[in-house]
Amino acid sequence: MDELRVIQVKEHVFASNARNADDVRERCHKQGLLLINLMSSPGAGKTTLLGATIDALHDEIAFGIIEADVDSAVDAHTIREHGAQAVQVHTGGMCHLDAGMCDQGLAELDCDSLDVAVIENVGNLICPAEFDTGASAKVMILSTPEGHDKPLKYPLMFQESDVVLVSKIDVAPYFDFDMEQFEHNVRLRNKDVPIIPVSAKTGEGMDVWYQWLRDRLSAWRS
Amino acid sequence: MDELRVIQVKEHVFASNARNADDVRERCHKQGLLLINLMSSPGAGKTTLLGATIDALHDEIAFGIIEADVDSAVDAHTIREHGAQAVQVHTGGMCHLDAGMCDQGLAELDCDSLDVAVIENVGNLICPAEFDTGASAKVMILSTPEGHDKPLKYPLMFQESDVVLVSKIDVAPYFDFDMEQFEHNVRLRNKDVPIIPVSAKTGEGMDVWYQWLRDRLSAWRS
Repeated sequence: MDELRVIQVKEHVFASNARNADDVRERCHKQGLLLINLMSSPGAGKTTLLGATIDALHDEIAFGIIEADVDSAVDAHTIREHGAQAVQVHTGGMCHLDAGMCDQGLAELDCDSLDVAVIENVGNLICPAEFDTGASAKVMILSTPEGHDKPLKYPLMFQESDVVLVSKIDVAPYFDFDMEQFEHNVRLRNKDVPIIPVSAKTGEGMDVWYQWLRDRLSAWRS
Repeated sequence: MDELRVIQVKEHVFASNARNADDVRERCHKQGLLLINLMSSPGAGKTTLLGATIDALHDEIAFGIIEADVDSAVDAHTIREHGAQAVQVHTGGMCHLDAGMCDQGLAELDCDSLDVAVIENVGNLICPAEFDTGASAKVMILSTPEGHDKPLKYPLMFQESDVVLVSKIDVAPYFDFDMEQFEHNVRLRNKDVPIIPVSAKTGEGMDVWYQWLRDRLSAWRS
C-alpha cells in the first residue's frame, strides 16, 4: 500500500518536473546555451574532467558550472580556480538535481556570456538518471576502478546517456578493467552511444572528448 | 507545493519502514543472527571484501548474503562460488533497500544455520543511509580512488556508519589519497567510528576487519 502511494506522488513529481525541464531547455535554446548534465559515481572524476576541459578550451568556449552536492562547496572553489563561473547548489540531502534546482543554479550564472553550462550532478549512478534537469545533453563518466560490470547493475544511467567517458584509463591495468567486456555490457543498454576512454591526468583521449563537445555545441546552435 | 507533498509521504514511508525494521531486528536478535548493512559507492569493492571474508572465516562464522541491485545477478553468483548462501534481490529501479525488501531476502536464506547475514546494499553513498533495513550494524566502504573529500559531500553515510573500511589501500599512491585528511574529514561527521584501511587483494588490514566482525558478533549475542 505504501509502495502504491509513493509511486503516485513520484509520477506527479515527474510530470511537474518535466514541465519545468522543458521550460529550461527552451530558454537555453533561445540563448544558444548548451546545458549538459554530467553524472557519475562519487569520485569518478567529474570535477577533474571539467577542470581539464576548461583549461584546454577556454579560448573557444565559455563555461559555467553548476556544482550539485548534498553538502560542501569544495568543487565550486576548484572550478573557480580554473577561471570559469561556478555556483554551488546544496540539494538538502536529496540524491539528485531536478529542473527547479537547476534553474536556481542557472539564475546565479551570467548565462548571456556563456556557451556551455554544465550541471555537475550529485555523485550517484541511479537517481540522477531518473530526473530531467532541462539539459539537452547527458554525459556520464565511469571510472575504471569501478569495474566493467556496472552497465549490468545500473541500466538506466547507461541507457539515458549521450556519451560514456571511461575515466582513469591510465590506471586500468591495476583494476583488471576489461574494456571489451565493458563495451559489450554498455551495448546491452545503449546500442549507439559513443564510448570514449580518457585520462585527465595523462591527457589520453581528451581530444576526442573535446571534439564531441564542439560537435554537440554546433549541432545545438544550428 | 510539490516538495511539501513529497516530504509528507517520505515521513509516512520512513515511519512504516521503521516499524518493519524493528521487527526484523528483534527477530534476528532472538535467532542470534547478526544482520549487517554493507554500503558504498558502485565498485568500491563490497563483493570482493565479502568473498575474502567468507574465505578467511568460513570455519568459525557461517555467512548468508543478500545481494541488492537495480538489475543483474552477477554478485550473488560470485558469492556462491565462495561457498556461502546468497540471494539476489532486485530493487526494481529503487536506489536503496528498505526493511521489507530485506525481510524478503532473509526469507530466502536458511537463517537458523547462519551466524552473520550481510545485506550488500545498492552501490550509492546517499539513499541507503536514509533507510533502516533492520540491520544492527552498518558497515561502509570508501575506496581510495574516490578521494579523501567524500565525508564532506556525503555526510549522512559517514555519520550513520559503525565502521569505515578504506578499501583498495594498495593503490592509494596512484590517487593522491591523503589518509590524514580523510580521517580529519570523517571526524567532522563521526567522532568515534573506527577507520580500517584494507586491501582484499594484498590482505593488508583484513585481520583488523575480521576482529571487528568477531567482536561485534559476540557483543550482539551477549
